[in-house]
Amino acid sequence: MPLDDFPIRLELPVLWGNQDLFGHVNNCIHIRWFESSRVAYWDAGIGELMKSAGNLGPILANVTCNYKSQIRYPDTVHVGASVRKLGRTSLTMEHVVFCENGDRLAAEGQSIVVLFDYDKQRPVRFPAEMIATIEEIEGGPVGG
Amino acid sequence: MPLDDFPIRLELPVLWGNQDLFGHVNNCIHIRWFESSRVAYWDAGIGELMKSAGNLGPILANVTCNYKSQIRYPDTVHVGASVRKLGRTSLTMEHVVFCENGDRLAAEGQSIVVLFDYDKQRPVRFPAEMIATIEEIEGGPVGG
Amino acid sequence: MPLDDFPIRLELPVLWGNQDLFGHVNNCIHIRWFESSRVAYWDAGIGELMKSAGNLGPILANVTCNYKSQIRYPDTVHVGASVRKLGRTSLTMEHVVFCENGDRLAAEGQSIVVLFDYDKQRPVRFPAEMIATIEEIEGGPVGG
Amino acid sequence: MPLDDFPIRLELPVLWGNQDLFGHVNNCIHIRWFESSRVAYWDAGIGELMKSAGNLGPILANVTCNYKSQIRYPDTVHVGASVRKLGRTSLTMEHVVFCENGDRLAAEGQSIVVLFDYDKQRPVRFPAEMIATIEEIEGGPVGG
Repeated sequence: MPLDDFPIRLELPVLWGNQDLFGHVNNCIHIRWFESSRVAYWDAGIGELMKSAGNLGPILANVTCNYKSQIRYPDTVHVGASVRKLGRTSLTMEHVVFCENGDRLAAEGQSIVVLFDYDKQRPVRFPAEMIATIEEIEGGPVGG
Repeated sequence: MPLDDFPIRLELPVLWGNQDLFGHVNNCIHIRWFESSRVAYWDAGIGELMKSAGNLGPILANVTCNYKSQIRYPDTVHVGASVRKLGRTSLTMEHVVFCENGDRLAAEGQSIVVLFDYDKQRPVRFPAEMIATIEEIEGGPVGG
Repeated sequence: MPLDDFPIRLELPVLWGNQDLFGHVNNCIHIRWFESSRVAYWDAGIGELMKSAGNLGPILANVTCNYKSQIRYPDTVHVGASVRKLGRTSLTMEHVVFCENGDRLAAEGQSIVVLFDYDKQRPVRFPAEMIATIEEIEGGPVGG
Repeated sequence: MPLDDFPIRLELPVLWGNQDLFGHVNNCIHIRWFESSRVAYWDAGIGELMKSAGNLGPILANVTCNYKSQIRYPDTVHVGASVRKLGRTSLTMEHVVFCENGDRLAAEGQSIVVLFDYDKQRPVRFPAEMIATIEEIEGGPVGG
């Protein structure tokens, strides 16, 4: 899936210190990049709605990463995020990491995020306004 | 699955700096702990065999983590690793993270690791000796 | 200065992932360990006093690290912290990192920490009770 | 000292995950940024010369950071590096971190780096060619 299919896109420099003993970017860094793209998604509107809807917040339930090719310093990565599934109280976000060197997919994966009501201490349904914002970001309806 | 079912077990302190803005251990740290338990597995014999068998090394193809409960500083975690599936050229390792506070499962997940021949630049079959060592560590046969 | 001269001491495992491309523990990790020992110092009594004295908290003004010898995985480090100077509104904490392999000093350094009143948004004098607790931890008077 | 006085300048995004429990960028991250600017300095010519001059490499002897103001997500930092002192076998590099929010200095510090001959296992004098390259980058002579 090309980067253009991801409505949220970050451009991030690879730091020398992101590499491990094997001479390529350490596997934990991809997970940090996924996190950065998740937060960028919230920043595009959902985060504000979570606050205004009460004491709501996202809880990460699962993260998965498929490492497709190695990334070395120096390089710049482009991280994409897109909500692919919108359940009652959770959503599935897809992530990709493309690197400029070789113009290739370096990793792809997903996060499952639960919408949590911290006052009631339980998951809550996505409010209609939040669904509308996600579908606006995605440019169309998102399946359940 | 209790920690005792994992032949490789690490005891690691939670550092204050492992926490993020939300006041609990950041999701990337679990992935680092998984890595630590993978390396501890190699240290138990497989790593030596990889070197002696030629220019072989493990390549991480996938990592998955299910976050079950939040971990706060101060605490100590116990990370377990076990090879649950042994394919022709890859294996699936299961990881668990238990924390002492509340004596509970904090996360569980898995890694898929490919055995790679760096000279031939392609995946290779697990040598019989390596399978034997894994099954010795696991205390019995591992399914494919 | 031997580790025994440091009243706060932490034993921390070196993780494989603490290493960088050069094959030894990355320079940022020592700073994280310093932080861990600073927090352990607060945990020994000062932290409680900060809270009970109002909206007080420590602000890190400076950190310095002298790297004395390289640390490789696997190893265990012992990190020591001691308050060496107690000014009106700031203190100087000394840190050491000893590693078990070779039983040697790997790093030494210091942190300068300012006691900050978040309500008044300015540094405040150390309360007598806090000075007493520090001198109790140190086993004697601390110079200014 | 303004950013323009630093010949090596990096623009780096602040990641959400760079923040700690206190809600601002964790003190270890500045040290990572210093490292990134050091490596960027080597990349500007010194690194190549180290390799061509034999088995030479930089060893970090000391790092110091003065934290001047807090950085919060989202923001972009500009990290500058400049060699301020050039000794026989070591150099002192100055670092600054400016953040765009508030257009202010967030941190300043320095690294002391020793030029090391890995074959002879001892520090070596900076070759004339390396000094010339540093002074070319700096736009003038660098004091000892």
